[in-house]
Amino acid sequence: MVVTRHWRRIVKADREGRRGFASPPSVATTIGGPTALELLERLTGGGIMPHAQQILETHPRTLGVAPGPLVACIDACFDCAQSCTACADADLGEPDVETMIRCIALCHNCSDICISTGRVLSRQTEFVPQVARVALQACIEACRLCGDECERHAQHHEHCRICAEVCRICEQACADALKALPT
Amino acid sequence: MVVTRHWRRIVKADREGRRGFASPPSVATTIGGPTALELLERLTGGGIMPHAQQILETHPRTLGVAPGPLVACIDACFDCAQSCTACADADLGEPDVETMIRCIALCHNCSDICISTGRVLSRQTEFVPQVARVALQACIEACRLCGDECERHAQHHEHCRICAEVCRICEQACADALKALPT
Amino acid sequence: MVVTRHWRRIVKADREGRRGFASPPSVATTIGGPTALELLERLTGGGIMPHAQQILETHPRTLGVAPGPLVACIDACFDCAQSCTACADADLGEPDVETMIRCIALCHNCSDICISTGRVLSRQTEFVPQVARVALQACIEACRLCGDECERHAQHHEHCRICAEVCRICEQACADALKALPT
Amino acid sequence: MVVTRHWRRIVKADREGRRGFASPPSVATTIGGPTALELLERLTGGGIMPHAQQILETHPRTLGVAPGPLVACIDACFDCAQSCTACADADLGEPDVETMIRCIALCHNCSDICISTGRVLSRQTEFVPQVARVALQACIEACRLCGDECERHAQHHEHCRICAEVCRICEQACADALKALPT
Repeated sequence: MVVTRHWRRIVKADREGRRGFASPPSVATTIGGPTALELLERLTGGGIMPHAQQILETHPRTLGVAPGPLVACIDACFDCAQSCTACADADLGEPDVETMIRCIALCHNCSDICISTGRVLSRQTEFVPQVARVALQACIEACRLCGDECERHAQHHEHCRICAEVCRICEQACADALKALPT
Repeated sequence: MVVTRHWRRIVKADREGRRGFASPPSVATTIGGPTALELLERLTGGGIMPHAQQILETHPRTLGVAPGPLVACIDACFDCAQSCTACADADLGEPDVETMIRCIALCHNCSDICISTGRVLSRQTEFVPQVARVALQACIEACRLCGDECERHAQHHEHCRICAEVCRICEQACADALKALPT
Repeated sequence: MVVTRHWRRIVKADREGRRGFASPPSVATTIGGPTALELLERLTGGGIMPHAQQILETHPRTLGVAPGPLVACIDACFDCAQSCTACADADLGEPDVETMIRCIALCHNCSDICISTGRVLSRQTEFVPQVARVALQACIEACRLCGDECERHAQHHEHCRICAEVCRICEQACADALKALPT
Repeated sequence: MVVTRHWRRIVKADREGRRGFASPPSVATTIGGPTALELLERLTGGGIMPHAQQILETHPRTLGVAPGPLVACIDACFDCAQSCTACADADLGEPDVETMIRCIALCHNCSDICISTGRVLSRQTEFVPQVARVALQACIEACRLCGDECERHAQHHEHCRICAEVCRICEQACADALKALPT
């Protein structure tokens, strides 16, 4: 199973002393309910956690946006960029590809705009709120339209259901960051 | 504290029924050792987990690479793209910016190559191993050189220390994916 | 001299029958004023002309924007993405790099937003005007702010002078495309 | 006609004193053969010339690659990035989209790799030949495979014929730049 295999990889990496990965949780430390391992796997899906927050915490200048909304927005943008690339590609592999053209187009646009927005927000030295504002506004709209279209296909394409979710998370994270911008 | 604030946000999002976030763990379910909450925070750093694995699990075609190394590589590429953008920017804010020029240049190059590699690997419909191979080879070299340079500054710039780690993780994840490519 | 060397390359490529390059102009065909060769070199700077227009002219669907403003906008976005990357890099090599930090940050943001905007406009199958609108608005603002900052350094850094020009061209081309969007 | 309209735009821009555009050529300055205007339109296709060369000529440091191959490579990478995005999109609008999936996938990959390569080569402050080398190698292979696939569709899709040409130009320009790298 992928999760387990990958988890072993994280555990192994940790034993080798790589920082940035959690210590392997003791499964015996929980009583009833989901175990810590189960919680962790449910939360992480077996993947690698992004490091945006760790780097931002060490930034030499005062951040231009509150760190909570900022990190959430950056993580969401890079995640959504990947999801939309993957969803557009999965659409291409579906037997009903002719009905997925609009979804593919919106996913590609959303992915590109998420990359640029995630990078703009990642730059906190000489942060210019006006640039961040228009980037976030573009990203909110791109995520909204892409999320709407993916949702229309959520019943028959599971990747569209997940991608719609990711778009909603990113739309919300960008809206939160927009509110947190200095006026 | 950032982590806590962000964790509350995740918890709140979950209460609103958003899928893709874990249920808030009961702090009472652990005895001794770190609590589940502590484990989760340590693992996640308060950020949003990427969804690469979830989408790939629903892909309509057979994946061209084993899912474990594939997901790790995609996650690592997008994470490293973000970290290198953030580290290059943090370098710009340091008082000794003149000594950081090579680090900045290597971070920018690494970030761009990570984006293109992460996207190439994300496309599994009509996966062409030859393209993946050269993309991965480029990414391994970019991460290696960027990691080496960041490491040189790890003692005096914490963001460089973290970025070096992220580069090492990405270099390794790309090497694992390269080994997993069909010949 | 670069121009001449590169021009010879174009001429040579043409002799090899590559389409997409002009025939070498006869220098003897002009009287007085600049020769055709001089005009061509002045116009092209010795570079390769983009092919956006040629491909768009063969697009299977009706374009969502009038082709004139569309091509100009796409060409300008990709040109500005390159210029801003190059200008940010040249800034790093200047002795007064500490005074160029804001310029570098704005150039990087402008470059990323130009790439995403140029790609969004390049996609004319299932063109969604709302996405194009927000992308163009973001690009106009990013180019405006980057152009303003580069202009401040135009007197002492020639690359900033040129980059400011390219930003102005792109800002205008995006504004023209915005006006040409269907309402 | 697009070319004419756009040409008027260039002329108009020039009258407004924007630098970077050629002076409007006097049609009367040529005798026989194509007029300078015809030559210019044939060469430019009505588009905007990239400014890579102009900015590189003002770079504060010694370039790491001979300027001729460097400019040709950068221009070709950005041009190919745009063409591949546009061709992948045009493929989506074709009635035989199911037969174009491999072309779409290769175009997307080529576009992403061209962007990262064009940017890596654009950075000449602290130029690191090893990074440029692997980026160029990846780009050569991506362009070769994408060009081969587009060529297979050149008979029935004009955008594929043009995109194949652009890929060949970029493949060659990257090979020339690779040869020009310091060893």
